[in-house]
Amino acid sequence: GKDSEEADEEIAQTEQVINAIQYYRRYGHSKLRHFVAVFRRLCDSHQLQLASPYSEHLKKMKLCIDQNQRVLKQILSYGLEMFGGDHSLQTAAEISQLRPASELYMSKVKSTLKQIVRDWSTEGINERTLCYNVVLSAIRARFPDVARRHDVSILVPGAGLGRLTWHLVLEGFSVQGNEFSLFMLFTSNFILNKCQKENEFTIYPYVLDTCNNWTYEDQIRPVQFPDLCPATASPTRANTFSMCAGDFLQTTNGDDECWSVVVTVFFIDTATNLMNYIDTIHRILKKGGVWINFGPLTYHFADMDDEDSIELPYSEVIRLVKAKGFKMERDERNDSIPPTFYACNERSMLRYQYSCGFFECIKL
Amino acid sequence: GKDSEEADEEIAQTEQVINAIQYYRRYGHSKLRHFVAVFRRLCDSHQLQLASPYSEHLKKMKLCIDQNQRVLKQILSYGLEMFGGDHSLQTAAEISQLRPASELYMSKVKSTLKQIVRDWSTEGINERTLCYNVVLSAIRARFPDVARRHDVSILVPGAGLGRLTWHLVLEGFSVQGNEFSLFMLFTSNFILNKCQKENEFTIYPYVLDTCNNWTYEDQIRPVQFPDLCPATASPTRANTFSMCAGDFLQTTNGDDECWSVVVTVFFIDTATNLMNYIDTIHRILKKGGVWINFGPLTYHFADMDDEDSIELPYSEVIRLVKAKGFKMERDERNDSIPPTFYACNERSMLRYQYSCGFFECIKL
Repeated sequence: GKDSEEADEEIAQTEQVINAIQYYRRYGHSKLRHFVAVFRRLCDSHQLQLASPYSEHLKKMKLCIDQNQRVLKQILSYGLEMFGGDHSLQTAAEISQLRPASELYMSKVKSTLKQIVRDWSTEGINERTLCYNVVLSAIRARFPDVARRHDVSILVPGAGLGRLTWHLVLEGFSVQGNEFSLFMLFTSNFILNKCQKENEFTIYPYVLDTCNNWTYEDQIRPVQFPDLCPATASPTRANTFSMCAGDFLQTTNGDDECWSVVVTVFFIDTATNLMNYIDTIHRILKKGGVWINFGPLTYHFADMDDEDSIELPYSEVIRLVKAKGFKMERDERNDSIPPTFYACNERSMLRYQYSCGFFECIKL
Repeated sequence: GKDSEEADEEIAQTEQVINAIQYYRRYGHSKLRHFVAVFRRLCDSHQLQLASPYSEHLKKMKLCIDQNQRVLKQILSYGLEMFGGDHSLQTAAEISQLRPASELYMSKVKSTLKQIVRDWSTEGINERTLCYNVVLSAIRARFPDVARRHDVSILVPGAGLGRLTWHLVLEGFSVQGNEFSLFMLFTSNFILNKCQKENEFTIYPYVLDTCNNWTYEDQIRPVQFPDLCPATASPTRANTFSMCAGDFLQTTNGDDECWSVVVTVFFIDTATNLMNYIDTIHRILKKGGVWINFGPLTYHFADMDDEDSIELPYSEVIRLVKAKGFKMERDERNDSIPPTFYACNERSMLRYQYSCGFFECIKL
């Protein structure tokens, strides 16, 4: 029947995530083998010129790759232990056999390492300040009474590795993060619940990026995480904190007029049809509830011929939000907000710079 | 034999370029048909919400696509006329039949339109100032006597659409631009030789980019070119100017100790093995000749398993240049040079920001 087909599909996708996380080391080693083969095909003179700095660098890369795999394995093991009761996850883990993963899945593993830098390292502080502070300031200003914030329920769709969500918890709000990606869910779960002390773990997030480096050292530089430890930093409060796994549109099915605030940061462009997000956010907010948004419009499903993606400009998004029944209280575009970055290597010669839109609106 | 196989291969590649340029309109229309189909599959309520602004926008997009095709066709016709004597080009044009082009080739057509903005429009002035002025200043300072500049021979590998090359001509130098891409060669030839007046032609370079737009208007905004007309702006001088088609390593085969200056801007990362470029530039420069370089290291053949690409960090490039027998006179990295952009849509929410290395060195 259809339900069991869906369950099979979920198990298959989960198994691909588990496989990709475990395949990282072999993937990295195969890249190294390719580099060595290319080196050996160079003429003698060029081999001599590159000489020991190059071969030393490849050796160091190998150590970095192995260390990344160790951390990824811990993240995976803790996830399987923690979510052990979940049928599809358990089945997926049981049937998982190490085999080559697609470039797409390996790019997701590599992105996960960079997301750790963004959300949970000292190196990511500039990025976080630029992206999260404008949102946090708006929420603080709206709910200045810290003692009563536990009554304010905030939903964060696209919570990623949960730093913004955790920030809101620390400020006294009752918060739920929602996230679809299993890579993100495993990793945020590990950081939020398993890490015991500051900067306990070391990764090499840029080791496989061979373009636009200033030095060999920049490419293989270590990043430690977490810069603060949620498990020990957590004060006893009246507020609540949870993470919810799954698709935003589906998991919010029974949430009519349930939330005081919805916060979307670098999230709305994950929609194939942004109007579905607008409809859902309108439905799940209480009357007078607030939606705060910050981000660009890099539609994730653009140019995929097999996906029904609608790509609208920002001014149309604002028009549709108002037409739905929101009162726009702040609408800041272009030069009024400094440019931001997303999971960016700050020592790279190439950085993707985002000029984000910020809006704050009220459900009428 | 091998020679006729190579000739066949050249004809086949040329034919793909000609086909892609001619296929642009149908490519654009197929995208529009997809957008219309997606729109029709939306629920009635969402169709009503998007309503006339969306369908008006799609209609305007069609007009922009058609206009881009008209300009592209003029560029192609002039190229075929101008290079009519070239056997492979003529054969390629004769056998060319309109058929769907690959996404790769269509992306090259789209890039060509954006390169026009970079090199030959008023809108590109900021980009050009940031990238070219540091190079032009260095050359002017080195050769202050304008009257004697015609004796200074400059080679510009990776000349693209030729703006920097043309700038150097205007300053009185004898210059040759070298370019491999037929898309660039057709287009630079058109601008340098065919255009009759300033802002004679209009294109819509961003019409097919549906992500990260602030408004519908930004996406379909026109750009005029050329901002200045080389054919009429050209003064009578003692210096020479030429463009040379082909691979830099091959076309410079007989150029031993031939050039006073080599200028590389956003070029050196087109190498599979940068040491070949260093060797060649060293060989073709006169003793005491100068190499000026500006750009990032986005190696074009990185991550292609079927290409022997070596990807080195910037500090290693500098080390190899010195080891080859160049005296480094200026070496500026990171924060000493303001960030630059490359064929970037300046009204987009997403921009690729390059932190470029600049160096100036002398062949000993």
